[in-house]
Amino acid sequence: MNVEEMKKAVAKEALKFIEDEMVVGLGTGSTTAYFIKYLGKLIMDGELEEVYGVPTSYQARLLALEAGVPVVGLDEVDAIDIAVDGADEVDPQMNLIKGRGAALTMEKIIEYRAGMFVVLVDETKLVEWLGQKMPVPIEVVPVAWRAIAEELEVFNATAQLRMAEKKDGPVVTDNGNFILDAKFHRIEDPLDLEIELNNIPGVVENGIFADIADLVLVGTKDGVKRMER
Amino acid sequence: MNVEEMKKAVAKEALKFIEDEMVVGLGTGSTTAYFIKYLGKLIMDGELEEVYGVPTSYQARLLALEAGVPVVGLDEVDAIDIAVDGADEVDPQMNLIKGRGAALTMEKIIEYRAGMFVVLVDETKLVEWLGQKMPVPIEVVPVAWRAIAEELEVFNATAQLRMAEKKDGPVVTDNGNFILDAKFHRIEDPLDLEIELNNIPGVVENGIFADIADLVLVGTKDGVKRMER
Amino acid sequence: MNVEEMKKAVAKEALKFIEDEMVVGLGTGSTTAYFIKYLGKLIMDGELEEVYGVPTSYQARLLALEAGVPVVGLDEVDAIDIAVDGADEVDPQMNLIKGRGAALTMEKIIEYRAGMFVVLVDETKLVEWLGQKMPVPIEVVPVAWRAIAEELEVFNATAQLRMAEKKDGPVVTDNGNFILDAKFHRIEDPLDLEIELNNIPGVVENGIFADIADLVLVGTKDGVKRMER
Amino acid sequence: MNVEEMKKAVAKEALKFIEDEMVVGLGTGSTTAYFIKYLGKLIMDGELEEVYGVPTSYQARLLALEAGVPVVGLDEVDAIDIAVDGADEVDPQMNLIKGRGAALTMEKIIEYRAGMFVVLVDETKLVEWLGQKMPVPIEVVPVAWRAIAEELEVFNATAQLRMAEKKDGPVVTDNGNFILDAKFHRIEDPLDLEIELNNIPGVVENGIFADIADLVLVGTKDGVKRMER
Repeated sequence: MNVEEMKKAVAKEALKFIEDEMVVGLGTGSTTAYFIKYLGKLIMDGELEEVYGVPTSYQARLLALEAGVPVVGLDEVDAIDIAVDGADEVDPQMNLIKGRGAALTMEKIIEYRAGMFVVLVDETKLVEWLGQKMPVPIEVVPVAWRAIAEELEVFNATAQLRMAEKKDGPVVTDNGNFILDAKFHRIEDPLDLEIELNNIPGVVENGIFADIADLVLVGTKDGVKRMER
Repeated sequence: MNVEEMKKAVAKEALKFIEDEMVVGLGTGSTTAYFIKYLGKLIMDGELEEVYGVPTSYQARLLALEAGVPVVGLDEVDAIDIAVDGADEVDPQMNLIKGRGAALTMEKIIEYRAGMFVVLVDETKLVEWLGQKMPVPIEVVPVAWRAIAEELEVFNATAQLRMAEKKDGPVVTDNGNFILDAKFHRIEDPLDLEIELNNIPGVVENGIFADIADLVLVGTKDGVKRMER
Repeated sequence: MNVEEMKKAVAKEALKFIEDEMVVGLGTGSTTAYFIKYLGKLIMDGELEEVYGVPTSYQARLLALEAGVPVVGLDEVDAIDIAVDGADEVDPQMNLIKGRGAALTMEKIIEYRAGMFVVLVDETKLVEWLGQKMPVPIEVVPVAWRAIAEELEVFNATAQLRMAEKKDGPVVTDNGNFILDAKFHRIEDPLDLEIELNNIPGVVENGIFADIADLVLVGTKDGVKRMER
Repeated sequence: MNVEEMKKAVAKEALKFIEDEMVVGLGTGSTTAYFIKYLGKLIMDGELEEVYGVPTSYQARLLALEAGVPVVGLDEVDAIDIAVDGADEVDPQMNLIKGRGAALTMEKIIEYRAGMFVVLVDETKLVEWLGQKMPVPIEVVPVAWRAIAEELEVFNATAQLRMAEKKDGPVVTDNGNFILDAKFHRIEDPLDLEIELNNIPGVVENGIFADIADLVLVGTKDGVKRMER
């Protein structure tokens, strides 16, 4: 299997957890895009009934509407039964780095509240420790970006303001904020860092998702493997 | 002195801390409004030179421009020498509740980074413990307001979505978010609660300002008193 | 009938136009609030089926969810069958001033696209010419407010930045913008003014709704009267 | 001269129009980036005094601060003496298409109000009629994008929602909106189309800048040429 096939395989595997009348948090990114597409097909074919999606981004919303998944907002539902999303890094304790797609705030809002959070990755995303390959995306209030970038040096991190390609200047998130990509040497205690970063004034949310994944489906050359608590 | 005179008295007292070439964080609210006005007069009269203000809200910006205080953004300065702002409650350890004016996020962004943070209040704002009279304003991403309001029950808090009077529906902050006013029974450990609230996904910032004030100027019937660390 | 009873009467009258499977634009304001409440009751009672609401504001969304009207976004529907909303002034040609609730941009986005636009007012809103009693609310990009306010003098208008009461500083709209309330002497040609205002750079939308209402239901002491094209 | 040299040449030429005490609108894009850099050098070297820049985007602001151009907001100045910006297309009457950098709204807000508007392009941007090579970028309120895209078919235009590369989903502008890139067959009357587009509810601003440029500096292989009214 190549990477694209791995993505499809885990997306299909995730479908097994979706039942009638579920409210499903819909993640952002290329792997989840397959999941949304497949989910829409099941709904359109009548194999799933009364399933609603809660999108974590404009992208997820557009894909869901296109695929035929009816969408609702977080304020319309009593609970989210399950959320399905990708990740940029997964450590052996199932802590995650997310946010390459700049949707981390809404993703965490939804996934933190889901009864079950299923993560879809291919095996290239598995790391020994968080920060091994990827920076931690941090969503910040625009005017504070420079001050926060400097303060991150205390954490031995080097932060870059993420610049856009299809507009001039920085990437603007769906919430109207900026993204700092902070490269840490090695993240020893993800939960601790997650809390510390969130407590910096001007930080809206950060891309460390510690202690929140319930199940990770990993696409490998030999098929889909599971990491569970 | 009545309350209005107290506000003017502490605003005047705060001027004594402003020196030439200082960058001054400009708070939001009625007491700070006097401070901005007086500061502008000193600058226009040439008694202060090369002083710049960093506004914490649209209100502070409008008042500063009107008063003649040149404004700069946080991203334009290397450091903020001093910040001056009001508060809704002050406990004996100089912990604060702020946010009745809905500007708490930008206020904390500026004041956390100020070399010295001076708080201006009249004596009616002094409390034995935080939460005694006032709710804690919490700025939240709009779609998450209902979920967060429910989760605050775990903290024995009752949260109300703040509704506007000059527009239909909820108050929208300068950052485009909503305000939850959360009434806590009694806040035992302000710093701990401040951190816990910030770690709820969807919370942008909250109105507890623990361990951040350096000096509180209190307007009393008998004149201005000081609380210091 | 007092004003509150008139509002209820027109709200009830508007229900007659709602049929099964309709997509209904939900306006903002106190009169429409009754309509949303009544509509929700019909849906909950099973007297209307497969009816969806497209809210024009956070307020309308909150009210709809509370009342039991399922909501969808404009991007989820192929067409809006009917929109129901209030107005601040109605002239004899059924031109409107709207925007006291600061939701004018989303209202115009929805109502301009509705197959039928029904306006609910009490008789105090009827005027001989637009601008007789009310200013025209204009939604503007924040940084441009002062320049636009000055330019409106060319139109013999006096514009005020709308200040909030439940937050410090200006009212911020659901879209993150400001509202200028522009008092015109007398608006001779509403359609012309509507176009001219929209063409001022920095104006997002304005509160003149010319040539767009299909039916006005007017609450009077003697019952509900109709204005039709 | 290659294209990069042409950009530098026109940027240098534009400097000749800047005098002491001027307020300068700072455009967005790669050509204007050279202008901002050169302007900053003149200011740092003391060859220009009391010059302030009004940025049209986050990008222009970042570049100005880096280059040493002091920035002010539109609400801080009585007038903008001159604005300097690039363009995506220039027709023989000096009408423009702008907005590839997604900053068109703030650009038009600033440039429409400038005493003189100088446009910097290389010769590849000259066209016989607007729309010959480039689509017209249109900034729209997010929820209205699909409806507006459909309505543009009336104008014989094909509109695409601009997708981002450094975030998942659509490009979000500095104002929090979306960009539709609308390909028109041939734009006969730019001023007329500019007004018509702005009058579609949900359109914040569009990328046609008709009758607004005072001078176009064109970088050619043979040096800088001028188009004037």
